Amino acid sequence: MEFTISQIAKLLNGKVEGDGSQNVYRIDKIQEGKPGGISFLSNLKYEPYLYTTESSAVIVSEGFRPSKPVKSALIRVADAYLGFTLLLESVERMSKPQFGGVEDPSYMHESSVMGKDGYRGAFSYIGKNCHLGERVQIHPHVYIGDDVAIGDDCIIHPGAKIMRKSRLGTNCEIHPGAVIGSDGFGFAPQADGRYKNIPQLGNVQIGDHVSIGANTTIDCATIGSTLIGQGVKIDNLVQIAHNVKIGENTVIASQSGISGSAEIGKNCILAGKSSIVGHIKIADNTTVGGNTAIMKGIETSGSTLLGYIGMDIKDFLKSYAVFKKLPELQNKLKDLEKNQ
Amino acid sequence: MEFTISQIAKLLNGKVEGDGSQNVYRIDKIQEGKPGGISFLSNLKYEPYLYTTESSAVIVSEGFRPSKPVKSALIRVADAYLGFTLLLESVERMSKPQFGGVEDPSYMHESSVMGKDGYRGAFSYIGKNCHLGERVQIHPHVYIGDDVAIGDDCIIHPGAKIMRKSRLGTNCEIHPGAVIGSDGFGFAPQADGRYKNIPQLGNVQIGDHVSIGANTTIDCATIGSTLIGQGVKIDNLVQIAHNVKIGENTVIASQSGISGSAEIGKNCILAGKSSIVGHIKIADNTTVGGNTAIMKGIETSGSTLLGYIGMDIKDFLKSYAVFKKLPELQNKLKDLEKNQ
Amino acid sequence: MEFTISQIAKLLNGKVEGDGSQNVYRIDKIQEGKPGGISFLSNLKYEPYLYTTESSAVIVSEGFRPSKPVKSALIRVADAYLGFTLLLESVERMSKPQFGGVEDPSYMHESSVMGKDGYRGAFSYIGKNCHLGERVQIHPHVYIGDDVAIGDDCIIHPGAKIMRKSRLGTNCEIHPGAVIGSDGFGFAPQADGRYKNIPQLGNVQIGDHVSIGANTTIDCATIGSTLIGQGVKIDNLVQIAHNVKIGENTVIASQSGISGSAEIGKNCILAGKSSIVGHIKIADNTTVGGNTAIMKGIETSGSTLLGYIGMDIKDFLKSYAVFKKLPELQNKLKDLEKNQ
Repeated sequence: MEFTISQIAKLLNGKVEGDGSQNVYRIDKIQEGKPGGISFLSNLKYEPYLYTTESSAVIVSEGFRPSKPVKSALIRVADAYLGFTLLLESVERMSKPQFGGVEDPSYMHESSVMGKDGYRGAFSYIGKNCHLGERVQIHPHVYIGDDVAIGDDCIIHPGAKIMRKSRLGTNCEIHPGAVIGSDGFGFAPQADGRYKNIPQLGNVQIGDHVSIGANTTIDCATIGSTLIGQGVKIDNLVQIAHNVKIGENTVIASQSGISGSAEIGKNCILAGKSSIVGHIKIADNTTVGGNTAIMKGIETSGSTLLGYIGMDIKDFLKSYAVFKKLPELQNKLKDLEKNQ
Repeated sequence: MEFTISQIAKLLNGKVEGDGSQNVYRIDKIQEGKPGGISFLSNLKYEPYLYTTESSAVIVSEGFRPSKPVKSALIRVADAYLGFTLLLESVERMSKPQFGGVEDPSYMHESSVMGKDGYRGAFSYIGKNCHLGERVQIHPHVYIGDDVAIGDDCIIHPGAKIMRKSRLGTNCEIHPGAVIGSDGFGFAPQADGRYKNIPQLGNVQIGDHVSIGANTTIDCATIGSTLIGQGVKIDNLVQIAHNVKIGENTVIASQSGISGSAEIGKNCILAGKSSIVGHIKIADNTTVGGNTAIMKGIETSGSTLLGYIGMDIKDFLKSYAVFKKLPELQNKLKDLEKNQ
Repeated sequence: MEFTISQIAKLLNGKVEGDGSQNVYRIDKIQEGKPGGISFLSNLKYEPYLYTTESSAVIVSEGFRPSKPVKSALIRVADAYLGFTLLLESVERMSKPQFGGVEDPSYMHESSVMGKDGYRGAFSYIGKNCHLGERVQIHPHVYIGDDVAIGDDCIIHPGAKIMRKSRLGTNCEIHPGAVIGSDGFGFAPQADGRYKNIPQLGNVQIGDHVSIGANTTIDCATIGSTLIGQGVKIDNLVQIAHNVKIGENTVIASQSGISGSAEIGKNCILAGKSSIVGHIKIADNTTVGGNTAIMKGIETSGSTLLGYIGMDIKDFLKSYAVFKKLPELQNKLKDLEKNQ
């Protein structure tokens, strides 16, 4: 596939500065750009590369003004990152593999049904009374338990496991090795120190346009449902415990963990390795920093928290700045005591 | 399934306050209770819902006294949480799917044997010289390596991997995607900066009534055995390194990690994302808080630790309270210095 | 297999002190040594066991001088740990199972090729246009996507998933359940709060002699490659995000996470649960402590960092020592203010 820079500018609804007649046939990172490639500049940390890159073209945002001469042609669009995303999507549409039909051997119980134009890979397993929508992709080694419903256009990647009674909306993507609907971790302590297993009889319900990362685990509810709202994006190796609720369009980065019965609002951002303790509510639009544990409910929308035990990010950073100087403070205090 | 409130009270060995003749046919969370449902109240955080719930019946503990009028019938039992668990167990017995027989295609080497009344799901794999007890469930996509022994009544959920030479007691449950007996992480540094692989020749031994969470990993020992004691409950995405020993009835929450050759006592509780450094011993009945790293052995039974580097929980919380005020302290110190 | 202590000493290029004519047929941990076993002593924490062990022989380092009488025969070698490793390797060579041939049913697309003397386990899946080298082991339930290249002598353990376009060098070991080449976590926020999926069109490239732990996830690049250098060793449950680069012979312990586009140097050591924020560079020979988050690039080779937000390890430990005494410091400050 080869296009001129002008053709790409047209596709992205942008304008060319420089020679639009050259051909490009590859997308490069700006710091590794070579002739014939197209790059983008959004994060200004990478601006210095703009003046050294050999990319034939670079996508930049409307307002961006270079501070030095640039050899590459520029394609100006409203937002460089979105323009770049649009370009990736076009390339993906042209290049991504098509999946369809049924590979042998695969297993689907006779009581289950699958909509038209779907794919079932070899060694995939579908239990009893399942209902799969149209154009659903069930990749190799996927396990679907009994009584599962999956909406149209979902992609279940290799080795993902969708346990009994789970319900997925449309256009969801479940990445390799993810487990949806495993038993919640519930044990009642006995007088003799042993633990009794508490049956986990609920399920997991997932809205439309949800993405669940590789090897992430989402437990079913004890009773009722663990709820993942529409548009939620969850990264790899995240743990979502039983009876958790996650509001629409919330984003959860890798290795975060949400304890049982916690409720996360809409449009929240949880950075990597963050933790939410059980049975608390987090307001909409909350941002939780990396490695931050939230131990109490957050009531104010729009808070940003950071810290070993999460607190207001500004307060934490101020305290941590003093923490670094604690030995010095201790010495000053000793001096004051001596001179008293 | 529909029962009267009195019938359920009898099942739970409890007493009804209110109208016991109504039918219930569903278990509800108290905050979402609707007519025809039965709820429970154990964590008093949820007490306000008792006065607003529409549940037909609520299970409460003997000693509980409502502070306002309650519309629902009450079922009084010795302990509301255990009573609720008993109810869940009854429902589970009546509703849970039965697994038996052999689904096609599945693979078991001719040298391996399986006790009576077991289940082997499609695409399950059992290697050489394995011995599986009675009523064992091997779900689809399970891998069992050579020379593995599994006791009676174990359930190995979809996609779990039990590597070579592992030994499991009776009544264990291995959740989806868990890996038991992967190679320990052992590499010897060479003079030139490269690392040499140290063969991991031991195995994993697991006692009776152990539960291992989804996508959790337990490494085999370098020599000897990684030991998981009877009644241990391990949550999802936990890492147990080579040659670790975990005492009876210890509970380990999600995303915790135990480094090589650490020994954890009996009846310990490790909260989410806790870490235990290698080659140390943790006394029986130790509680480790969430996100807490234990860097030194714990000798006193019954300790509770918290902190970035674990310390006595009360001391940590006092120090953290001052940490929050550090900028203020710094200012006071500056003032004192000025006024000196 | 039974050897005399002298035979083993010869194998390890060491010298016997004591009776070399006894037979040994088992490797024991020194604290659990029994007659007929051979142990080693490297970490001096275990020295007390040398004087109580019943092992027939113990491997020790050249310079080691016992402080009490020892009953076991000693085998002195240049380095006890390497000697022990050498012994393990010999035992492994004699005892490890051989894998070869093709088990039924397994799936390989007709366009893919596999070198000689390889193994394909039952229920393994190999997509289109793959090229696998000689003596490659593809264990049961392994998924290999389209256009994957795997070098000679690689071992892909059960249930590992190697996604589309990944490239592995020679002598790599991918442990059970690991996912190589899952989609990067990339979403562009929209004006209405929803997120748009950013296609992930790159791949993962892995050098020679790399080890990837059980259930670890490595995302493919958005464009270009996520790069894992030669000799890198990665433990279980680690997350490597899109476009990360990891230099040669770097070691990453369990549950660590590397965010997008971070570049880790050569010969670094990242301890358990460490985190590296995105888009930063870490110099060669950096050591990052457990539970430590690195938020800024590290420019000096040979740094060692520790802390909730990583700082020089000595500085952190000094500050943390004062942190423990903060309530006391606060009281002293109050006293000073009173007495002012």
